[in-house]
Parts: sequence; C-alpha cells; structure tokens
Amino acid sequence: MNSFGHSFRLTTFGESHGPALGGIIDGMPAGIRIDLEAVQRELDRRRPGQSAIVTQRSEADRVEILSGLLDGVTTGTPIGFEIRNTSQRSADYEEMRHTFRPSHADYTYQAKYGIRDHRGGGRASARETAARVVGGAFARQLLALHGITITAYTARVGSVALAERYPHVDAAVIESNDVRCPDAETAERMRRLILEVKGRGDTVGGIVECQVTGVPAGLGNPLADKLQASLAGAMLTIPAAKGFDYGMGFDGAEGLGSELIDLFTTDADGRITTLTNHSGGIQGGISNGMPLTFRVAFKPVATLLREVATVTDRGEATTLHARGRHDACVVPRAVPVVEAMAAIVLADAWLQR
Amino acid sequence: MNSFGHSFRLTTFGESHGPALGGIIDGMPAGIRIDLEAVQRELDRRRPGQSAIVTQRSEADRVEILSGLLDGVTTGTPIGFEIRNTSQRSADYEEMRHTFRPSHADYTYQAKYGIRDHRGGGRASARETAARVVGGAFARQLLALHGITITAYTARVGSVALAERYPHVDAAVIESNDVRCPDAETAERMRRLILEVKGRGDTVGGIVECQVTGVPAGLGNPLADKLQASLAGAMLTIPAAKGFDYGMGFDGAEGLGSELIDLFTTDADGRITTLTNHSGGIQGGISNGMPLTFRVAFKPVATLLREVATVTDRGEATTLHARGRHDACVVPRAVPVVEAMAAIVLADAWLQR
Amino acid sequence: MNSFGHSFRLTTFGESHGPALGGIIDGMPAGIRIDLEAVQRELDRRRPGQSAIVTQRSEADRVEILSGLLDGVTTGTPIGFEIRNTSQRSADYEEMRHTFRPSHADYTYQAKYGIRDHRGGGRASARETAARVVGGAFARQLLALHGITITAYTARVGSVALAERYPHVDAAVIESNDVRCPDAETAERMRRLILEVKGRGDTVGGIVECQVTGVPAGLGNPLADKLQASLAGAMLTIPAAKGFDYGMGFDGAEGLGSELIDLFTTDADGRITTLTNHSGGIQGGISNGMPLTFRVAFKPVATLLREVATVTDRGEATTLHARGRHDACVVPRAVPVVEAMAAIVLADAWLQR
Amino acid sequence: MNSFGHSFRLTTFGESHGPALGGIIDGMPAGIRIDLEAVQRELDRRRPGQSAIVTQRSEADRVEILSGLLDGVTTGTPIGFEIRNTSQRSADYEEMRHTFRPSHADYTYQAKYGIRDHRGGGRASARETAARVVGGAFARQLLALHGITITAYTARVGSVALAERYPHVDAAVIESNDVRCPDAETAERMRRLILEVKGRGDTVGGIVECQVTGVPAGLGNPLADKLQASLAGAMLTIPAAKGFDYGMGFDGAEGLGSELIDLFTTDADGRITTLTNHSGGIQGGISNGMPLTFRVAFKPVATLLREVATVTDRGEATTLHARGRHDACVVPRAVPVVEAMAAIVLADAWLQR
Repeated sequence: MNSFGHSFRLTTFGESHGPALGGIIDGMPAGIRIDLEAVQRELDRRRPGQSAIVTQRSEADRVEILSGLLDGVTTGTPIGFEIRNTSQRSADYEEMRHTFRPSHADYTYQAKYGIRDHRGGGRASARETAARVVGGAFARQLLALHGITITAYTARVGSVALAERYPHVDAAVIESNDVRCPDAETAERMRRLILEVKGRGDTVGGIVECQVTGVPAGLGNPLADKLQASLAGAMLTIPAAKGFDYGMGFDGAEGLGSELIDLFTTDADGRITTLTNHSGGIQGGISNGMPLTFRVAFKPVATLLREVATVTDRGEATTLHARGRHDACVVPRAVPVVEAMAAIVLADAWLQR
Repeated sequence: MNSFGHSFRLTTFGESHGPALGGIIDGMPAGIRIDLEAVQRELDRRRPGQSAIVTQRSEADRVEILSGLLDGVTTGTPIGFEIRNTSQRSADYEEMRHTFRPSHADYTYQAKYGIRDHRGGGRASARETAARVVGGAFARQLLALHGITITAYTARVGSVALAERYPHVDAAVIESNDVRCPDAETAERMRRLILEVKGRGDTVGGIVECQVTGVPAGLGNPLADKLQASLAGAMLTIPAAKGFDYGMGFDGAEGLGSELIDLFTTDADGRITTLTNHSGGIQGGISNGMPLTFRVAFKPVATLLREVATVTDRGEATTLHARGRHDACVVPRAVPVVEAMAAIVLADAWLQR
Repeated sequence: MNSFGHSFRLTTFGESHGPALGGIIDGMPAGIRIDLEAVQRELDRRRPGQSAIVTQRSEADRVEILSGLLDGVTTGTPIGFEIRNTSQRSADYEEMRHTFRPSHADYTYQAKYGIRDHRGGGRASARETAARVVGGAFARQLLALHGITITAYTARVGSVALAERYPHVDAAVIESNDVRCPDAETAERMRRLILEVKGRGDTVGGIVECQVTGVPAGLGNPLADKLQASLAGAMLTIPAAKGFDYGMGFDGAEGLGSELIDLFTTDADGRITTLTNHSGGIQGGISNGMPLTFRVAFKPVATLLREVATVTDRGEATTLHARGRHDACVVPRAVPVVEAMAAIVLADAWLQR
Repeated sequence: MNSFGHSFRLTTFGESHGPALGGIIDGMPAGIRIDLEAVQRELDRRRPGQSAIVTQRSEADRVEILSGLLDGVTTGTPIGFEIRNTSQRSADYEEMRHTFRPSHADYTYQAKYGIRDHRGGGRASARETAARVVGGAFARQLLALHGITITAYTARVGSVALAERYPHVDAAVIESNDVRCPDAETAERMRRLILEVKGRGDTVGGIVECQVTGVPAGLGNPLADKLQASLAGAMLTIPAAKGFDYGMGFDGAEGLGSELIDLFTTDADGRITTLTNHSGGIQGGISNGMPLTFRVAFKPVATLLREVATVTDRGEATTLHARGRHDACVVPRAVPVVEAMAAIVLADAWLQR
C-alpha cells in the first residue's frame, strides 16, 4: 500500500508524468498553526536544479493545501495536498516503452503488474519523494512543538567521508554547501568528486547520517514496532537506499561488549543518563532520552550519463542512450527525504506515547 | 503492537517468566499438511544449551499447537500455539528489581510503562524469539511448497569473517558446526574467538548473512511495503540487531554506478535475467527473480560475565554481579531467528502477490 | 482515520469549504480500462439540484484523476483524484461560528478537537460522500468485470414503503423517478410525501435497500471481517444512517427457526443452492452464492427549514434561522452512496478471496 | 483476520474441538490491577448449562492467563490467555463430515477453504465467543476506571418484548432471571416462550439492547471509524446477529425531523447537554456525553431440535438427525457477548482519544 505510519499516517499518490502528485496526512492533531512557507522551503530543498551538482531540470514544485486547515490552523481533519506536474515531455520517453533500464524498476513493475508507466519510472521515480517531504514538513512542525529536532547531512560521497561518526553538527553549515555536509572542507572534496564522476558520465553512492535530539525517553514499542525497526523500514523505502544502521551499527559486529556498553550515570539535575551513546538512543525498541543516531547508505544511481547495453521486453539486446538529467550523486537531495521520513516515524511514535 | 505481517500475520505474547509464551498465526492458507516435527526442529535450533559456545540453561522448549489443524492439515482458521516456561527461578532476579542493567531495556521499559517485569527482560528477552521461530516454521513450509528456500549463516564474529560476501552455501555444512558458518575453517576460528572472549567474561558481535532462492519476479510493493523495507523492519526487531543492508549494501556507498549496475541478459531458456546481483534481488521494492541477499549486524550483548557498575531506579550507583548464563556471541542462535523473520516477510509478500 | 477497506482501500480528504475534496484509491488492480464518464455519472447521481425534491444548490462537481492511469488503463499505482469546491460562500456561515446546531456534529467536533470548521459541517457534511462515490465507481468497474452487480433503491420514505422486502428490481425504473424507488406508483406517493414535509419546513427519514447479485460463494471471512460486519461498518459511516440489517434482519428476532431456515437444494446444473434467502446471502461471514440483501435506515436530517432553538458554545440560549438548502429527505441521494460503500466492501473482499 | 480493534486489540484463536481456544490482548495499558475472578465470572455468564433454557452441555470453562501480568498488575506487554477444551466427543460429529447443515457455515467454509472442521462449526461455533468475553472483561476493567459502564439485556424474545425502548435498567434484576431481562414479569413470559418453542424442537430469535453510561463527549472519529460504525461492525461479527441500530434506529426511518431532533440545554452545572437522546449518544461519529444506546437483532439459530432435510457435499439429499444440545434462544447468552464487544470497541476508542 501507499501509506506510511499508523497514528500519524501519510498516504501518497502520483507519478512523475500524470497531472499531479500529492497525498493525505491523517492524524495531525487539531489546533496547530502551520507555517506553510516552511513546508514550501522543505520542498525546495528536495528540488532539482539547485546547483551544479544536481540535475538541471527545473521543476517549479508548488504545494497546494486542499483541506484540513482553517485560517492556517489544523482542525483534526485530514490534510489533502497536491503538487502539479508541469513538465510532461512524454515524447522524450518513447524510447523506453519497450526497453528495460538496468537496475531500475522497469522489469519488476512489468513482472508484477503486466503494465508500467514508461514515462520516467512511475512510483519508483525519485520525484515521488516530494509528497513525503510535504508530509514530513507537517510532522516536523508537530515535533518542534515538543522540542524534537531532526538533522541529517551527507556523511560520505564515494571515497570521501567525514572523519567522525555523528559529530556535533550545525544546520547552517550543512545548508551552506551544495552537498549538505557539516564540514566545509570535506564538503568541497565531495563536491569535486561528484563533478569529476559526472564528467565521466558516471554516478557515485554515499551515506546520509541523521541525528534526532530532544526525544524523551519512552517513545517506541517493545516488539514489532521497535523504534529502530520503524526507522529502518521507513528509510529502506527511499529510492536507492541499500542499508540502515543505528548507534554503533555495523561496527558493533566487530566490537566487544565491554567496549560498547553504555554505562549509566546521573546528570547535574539527578536524572539518569548514559556516559556514551553506542546504543543510538534506543534500548529494546524504546527511546532512552539520548539523541537518536542512524545512517542510511545510498547506491550510485543506475541511470548513467552514457550509453548502456540492455534488453527489450522481448529479451532482445539493445542500447539505451545517455539521458543526462539525473544527479551524479543522489545523496545531497536525499538529505531532506531522510529527515522527512524520520519526522513521520517520530510523529507516529509521539502520537502513540 | 505485537503483530508481524499483514496477510500472513504472527501475533505473539509471553515473557521469559510467565506461565507460557506463544502466538497466533493468521492467514496461513487452508489445505497444507504441516510437518510438526520440522516445526519443533526449528525451535530446537534456537534453544540454549546446544554446545559449549552458547548459554547452558536447559530450556526444554516444546511447542503445542492449540488450534487451526485438522488431522495435521491447516483449515484456514488461526493457528494458536504455546511454549510453556519451565524454569522460573524468580528469586535469581530479585537483585534486578530496582537496578537498571546498562544497555538493556530495563530503563526504557520503566520510562514507558512505569512498571517492568524485572525477572529477565520481559518482552526484550531473547526468549521471546521462540514464538517467532514457530511462526517462521509455518511460513517456511508454505514457501517451500512454492520452491522458496531461506538460508542464513554466520558471516562474521568480531574480527573473524568469511572471505566472500554471499558465497555459495551448503545448509548441511552450516548446521554441522556450532557457529553456523558455511566455511568449516572459518567456523573453527570463530568458535575459538567466542571461547576466548567468553573466558575473559566479555561478549562479541557479528553478522548474519541470508540468501533466499526461488523467489519469483514480482513479489513486494512499490512504496511503503517495498520488499527491502519489510525485511529491514523485520530484522531490526530482533534483539541486539543494529543494522541491515541488502545486495551491495553499505559498500554501494563507496562505489560507482558503472561498476554496480546489474546488466540484463537472457538465460538458456530465453528468460530475462541479470549478469550480476549487486541489487540483491530487488528493484524498486519488487523481487526480480534473482536470489535475495541481505545482512544483519548484531552487537555484542550487554550482559557481561563479570561485574558491571550501574545505577538503581533512584539513580544511585550500584554494582551488578556477573550472571554468567548468556551467550558470549548471540549470532549463532540468531541464525534461525533471521530465517524465521525472513520467512514471515516472504510469506506475507507471497500471499499478496 | 479516513480510510475504508484494506486490500482495496479508499482514503479521503476534504470539507465542503476548502479548495477541494478528493481521495486516493489504493489496491486497484493493474490493466483495467476505466470508463471515466461512468465515474462522472455516479458523481452526478449524488449531486444536489437534480430535481424538485432535493436541495437546489448547484454544485458542478467534476472529478479530475491525478494519477494511476496510463492511456485510461490502471497501472497498479494509487489513483489520486480531486473535486474542486466551487461555491464557498463562507459569509453565509458566520452565524454558525459560535452556535451548535442540534443533532449535528458541531458540539462533538468541538468537544473532540477544541476547534471546528463552522462553514458547513466539516467532515460531517454529506458533501464528503462525493469522494466515496468516486472510489465506489472504480470498485464497481472492478466488480463488473467479475459479474457482480450492486443495485440500491429507496424502500421507505416515512410512512410510505414498498409492499415487499427485496423485490425483483429494474435499475432503469429506479433511475426513472426522483426518489429512486423501483415501483413507480410507490415512488409517486413518496415524492408527494417529501414535498408535503418540505412544505412544512420539516424533514423525513427512510430506508435504502440494496441487492448484490453475482457474488460467488466464498467471499468474506469467518471472524472480525465477516462480510456482514464489513457491510454494517461501512453503511454506518454514511451521514444520517441509524441502522443496518441483512437478510431477514430485525424480522428474524420475531421469527422461528423452522420458518427461517434456508434449506439446500440443487439447481438445474447440479450446483448446491438454497430454496430461500432469509440469510441474505451470507453464512458465518462468508458469501454462499445467493444475492446479498441488506437495508440501511436513515433518520430525518436535523437541519430543519424553519427556526430552531439551540445554544451557543458558551451554553447560552439562541435561535438558528432557517437555512433552507438541505434535502427534506436524504434517502434518494443516499442510494448511490450506499452502492458506493457496498462496492468498496465487495472489492476489498474480492481482492482477498 | 482474527483481530478486533486497533489501539486495544484482541486477537483470538480456537475451535470447539481443538486442545484450546484463547487470545492475545494487545494495548492494555500498564499498571492496572486486574480482578481475575471478575474475568472468570464474565466467562461463567456465557457458559452453557446455566439453566433450563440453555443447552445442557457442561463446559467447565476456566481461563488461564499466560503472560502480561506481574503480581496481578498489567505491565504493558500483551496478555496471552487460553481456555482448554474439555469435551471433545468427535465421534458425535462423524455424521456431519459430508453433510451441510442448512443456514450454518458448513457450505461457505467448504467453498472458501476447500476443507472444514466438521466437528462443531469451527470458528463459526458460538464457543469462539468465549475468547471475546475474556478480552471484553479486561476492556471493561479499563473502562470502569474511567467511569464507563456497559449494560446489556434481553429486550425481545420472539413475540415477547419490553414495553419501552432503552428503559432505566438495574443490573441486579437483569442477572436475577434466566433470560437476562430487566423486567421480571416480561422475563417470565420470555422464559415460558423459550420453553414452549424448545418443547416443539424449534428455536426463536430476539433482540439484545445495550446502554453505555459515563462516556465522555469526544470519543470516536469523524469518518471511517465513526463510533456507531465500530459498534455495528463489532456486533455483526457475533454469531446469529442479523441487525444493528442505535438511538432512534429503524424507527427514525418513519419519523419527522421536528420530532426526532435532540434540542440542547444546559444542566445544573451549566454544562451543555440534550433534552432527549434520539441520537443514541453519538453525533457525526463522536460521542456527545449522553448514554450510548443500541440494539442487536438475533435470528433463531438454525440448529433445530428435530430432523432436517439437507444435502451432502456432493449435492445428494439426506437427513440430519436432531442433535438437541443447542439453545432454543441464543439471546440470553448473547448478552455478555454484546457487552464484551461493546467494551472492546469503547476501550479502543478510549485509548485513541
């Protein structure tokens, strides 16, 4: 199905080439004044054409709210919204009608449905994430009222990575550079790598890290809806995401218990806290009051900027021409999507507390 | 909530110290003859006390089926089952009534519920996974009828790892050694590492890899229920799991698109397939007919076999004594749990195809 | 939440006074050619202003499909749609900002949310059912492919009722008169009663009956999702609906088992069928191959066409003026809504068969 | 599926002839001391063999709680429970292996599943409701803490009915007579009717009415989960239930708006309330603070106490012998089941408030 969350639930619709995409936000509490410009700003962060390192399509994505607000305040009824598609050059896509792009969803959609929208990837298109960013923007405004802040950033692009895992970050620095990296010098090396890879007609992967602060102890559930399970499930729905870990993550597989245990202490106010945060802010599926920390790995996108050998839907060999309008690295634009999905998961957990 | 899956749904109950744990399997199709001995064998694989490297508690876990079968054949009605708890030495746990074990769920349960069952971790206890293994055993029998086989194994214990990711594996070799590693020589090195770590009163993490063969193209969904998202969510509910990736996984973050693309070809029968499987058998959330491949990272468990400094529920410093009955490495016993959860996810996807 | 169904799921949004209302249809199978004019025709059947007996507001409801179709054929992706609101005379509603209309949802919305959209009833407005009629129209086209036909009609208006329960009906006759009654003479008496009641500034209730033919044996479920339970739940979400029964219904409470048992027989082709249909086509929650028959009782709407004494949100006595734009009997326009909800329930059951 | 509710969710398993039936209660808040004897008393109220008017099977139903309690207090973890089946005289049922009982679920189960448990109706057996009564007993204890009380009673048996709809009732009077009727004289007439019908080998239907007091304004939801829809859906899952209405119910179909409007007033404390309760305590799907009132119609059960003509699963004519162990009127024993289902619906709504 096309719904994220339970108590806070976002249901989305739309492909890159129909009249519009959009969604319905169900469960947003009543009485919250919404900053609609902030919603639009989140959408702008996801937009292509922002800089030299991202695709140059100009999508003038404007969100229109269709219901659920009275004088800018939520009423408890569902919030419908839409983003009209403006550039529908379907003719461009005629080549793809009978050809499967490698490592895209063309073949699997055909296998599942017996039909597919060949004009740009259908629901597998990254464009679909625009609706999630809108839903996430509402969730963030709800969470902000309760002191919860979500900050994601680019931690790796190919071989270039931050020196430290989960460093102290500054949102202003992150947004000040094209790659959304919290360290300006590393950001510049990432930018150069992306441009170099792009120049060769290739693409490169990377990692988004995310830190959530202000989460009170007690969010989440003990079993099927463990907080880390909800986060992992949400992150792995993002196009091109290939992995998730939290806290010590995969490094924990190589470590010893005596090194990775988070010993308790009490803070200045006598409240119980921990000396370290190898756990990533969650124990037994439930938040412990420390920051949530997690990573999402993204593959290099499979749409190369050069010719690729492939097959038609009859299995005949053919060649796809370079299309040249995709990002050489999806990670910078994935940052706001990771934040949006984290916001949806946390708003859902918050409403179930 | 305590339910996994939608069309195939397992709901579980039970702590380590009540009368019983068990569950209800909803959605199992009618008319399937169940091999109840095979169900019990799966449960035996998860059992403590199997060898020198695992905890020596002897839990004589016997599953009793309470409903849903007529002469050993499923009727389409829900399958209730239970496993009685036999060893309830609650006195052993009195020390823990007011003390929070570090990196366990004691503190977070208290924060969420204002009460907790101090006798062994409640729902956070690994014992809870016994019910999942039973549910998974039914799912596996359903999948086996359709040619789908799930094989997990230990790929890493601390610093000792298999040389190759997703090698060709042989279930008989895997089950022939204590650590459930498909390479006998590596298995022996893992075993020695676990014993050494155990000797020091410490614990060590590791990685379980899993391969699913026989999955037809077309299972899964395009958006919120992408197959990889369902797998990630399910795996991150396993106690001590800290990360999940599939196919190229986190390595994809460091690679180039031109290296990691799975080019199409046709097989001897003219069917479309791919030359490589960096994608891990899934494109756009939907299986492509190649084997599913994924990894789950486990942390070293926090129950050390030596004294640990901690705090009471009033925030006062105290010391927990060594308890000495936990595995020094949970990974070998996590192998059947990973398989069970994969089976539940795939049975669910199968029934929705 | 705002979703109907599971495997076929309609999620709706929208109030009478925002920019638009609409919804998302999730689970519509791929490859079905949709007759969009038929969808619009269903919407037209629900529209006010069709005749002398219904409200004279002219809502030019036009549905726009936003996603999920390629050249008029479903692709398996969600179908987003919207209906723009055209007449937003909010000034008309200023009187209602601080006044609770008796037997409306004004007071309960205020109690639940602490805020309400005073401009026309918010989600409690009958206008919300327009989105359901669109969802139902898609469901009907799916069901029609499998030979399932849904026919509802007005069986009672106040004291005027059809002579027989569940008579043989003809859709053409039903649609040929204003009240949607399958018997022309009774229809005329109903029409006169409605006009008479309207002339006195009053309103009158009634009953919609529904018959579903072509349902194969085996749809539905044995317990929580019994087919009659899904139907009852769906019907009781329709504004002004006060009761539901199926087959013998409430009459069964007064009868004897020996009179109301449906004895089996075999038809000309040797298939098992029943001599009578007191059961209404369902046994144990599962369809038995006979027509489904059920009734929905509607109250007289509380919006009178004359002055009404009421209270403000401070509990002070006040008077509401006649507004005069509501139906004197909602039953004729409820007919397509009953059909739509039945279609959604049956499409859901069909996809789970 | 076999689950009732969302935030308070009961999942059940079990047939009349397996080892046990039972369920899992998910969502019960932590920290509530449970009166287990009161749970058993509810189960005893549902039990056969209580008096001359009900079936004489002696089922010594004892509920065992398997998890979720610590020293009698809920811990927030799921509550597993079971009721062992004691009388399994399967031989009695051999006659039914190839014969379909008329107006039972034998034929529809066979059509849906291709297999059925012929020993007593499987999940369609009224015995399944025992698990609901246990789940409802927990829900009632939760509601009682918040002042919500549920009282159902027999309002009609065949031709004998209470004079007034929703009269003032006294639980002690209701439980003092076999038929659970709040008026002693009417109760006696009902009892005589049941015995007379039973003497002729026949059965008779009836109506259960239910009143819920102490419900605060604001429970329920505006659309798909309207409070009346949840109640209707829950009630129609009870075996033999054929109809549901609330407040004015089906009578509203015959009435005028001017007569059935609930005018507002203020009570002695200045709180807004209504002069009448034709609405049955719900407006727009949300409780308004008045008592909830609803009715459930039950058919006469189809298991006659005399020979019945029917067909085999091959469609051949045959005769079923009288079995003689069913109630001649299910209504008195349905009373605690109606209360249980109402409790589950209201606990669910309460937890979502």
